[in-house]
Amino acid sequence: MQNIQVFDDCVHELSRLPGVGRKTAVRLALHILKIKPEQAYKLSDAIKKLKDNIKFCKECGSIAEGDVCKVCSDSHRNKEIICIVEEAKDVFFIENTGRFNGLYHVLGGKISPLDGIGPSDLSFNKLIERVEKLYIKEVIIATNPDADGETTASYIGKILQNVSNLKVTKLASGIPIGSHLEYADEITVLRALENRVNL
Amino acid sequence: MQNIQVFDDCVHELSRLPGVGRKTAVRLALHILKIKPEQAYKLSDAIKKLKDNIKFCKECGSIAEGDVCKVCSDSHRNKEIICIVEEAKDVFFIENTGRFNGLYHVLGGKISPLDGIGPSDLSFNKLIERVEKLYIKEVIIATNPDADGETTASYIGKILQNVSNLKVTKLASGIPIGSHLEYADEITVLRALENRVNL
Repeated sequence: MQNIQVFDDCVHELSRLPGVGRKTAVRLALHILKIKPEQAYKLSDAIKKLKDNIKFCKECGSIAEGDVCKVCSDSHRNKEIICIVEEAKDVFFIENTGRFNGLYHVLGGKISPLDGIGPSDLSFNKLIERVEKLYIKEVIIATNPDADGETTASYIGKILQNVSNLKVTKLASGIPIGSHLEYADEITVLRALENRVNL
Repeated sequence: MQNIQVFDDCVHELSRLPGVGRKTAVRLALHILKIKPEQAYKLSDAIKKLKDNIKFCKECGSIAEGDVCKVCSDSHRNKEIICIVEEAKDVFFIENTGRFNGLYHVLGGKISPLDGIGPSDLSFNKLIERVEKLYIKEVIIATNPDADGETTASYIGKILQNVSNLKVTKLASGIPIGSHLEYADEITVLRALENRVNL
């Protein structure tokens, strides 16, 4: 190394980002050196502004400009239905469909014994509290359909089973639109078969 | 999308980095929201400081704190030998060996007809100028051994062939240390065979 402190510092900070190793960090730092100063300052400012202005919603755990996010504070949303997701980014994917008008609840992860994440690490207590306080009529579980996500979905089903007048549903599993049967694994095909719908 | 301008701005700026798509940018932005404020500010500051303080060396094209880099301004380096690399990051890889004590010359890329990069886009004129001005005795070509890198190496050989008393060498190709013959492609094995060395 040429031991240029400012460069090394930037590489070090960049390499702390998830999925960015040392070599990628060097590549990013060299890219920043090549772009126009305005663009680099924009990036630097955008990171600072993000940290200064955006928080996680006190209610649902999604991102918010104030204490409460736009969804939670929107009087036009249906406050009788909650969609439960693992991470804040999953909220975007559901919102992008443009067809869900209810509330969200971000768990902050999924139950994963191998990673040492148990129920107490996730926002289940807050979920039960919200379901009861808001008199929720339906909970849609939108955890990812992998092993940990399915475990988490079962757990949610269990802790909510005693809430009266509550419908608990889960996103459908099946063949992705535009894909082919031959590319789907057996369990996906099995699920698609079991959950077949009327034409 | 929830249309939070500050968040979208940060995602937009992050997604302009090489190898960062929209989904990765969202993941990075959410990561920044989760870390301690100090760490986010450090990242933001490091990017700004990098842009304010680091430039490309006027002589060799490597990174530098002032106009000229540490290598070019170091009186202990051997100024009769130049190692030619494609990108500034390649300088690190050679420096990391701790065994090269000469100068560098960063081309800024490689000849790549498919990407529309011709000789005039790279710093060949500056290379010839430096080789002549500094009375360079040896040029080590360290372009990557892929198709474009080899083309570039040949081109360098051609433009330097009339410089008197100049030895032009190229990094050896062969089986990487710690690897096995069975994992090497045929051309690599062929090169290793052709360039075999005495025990």
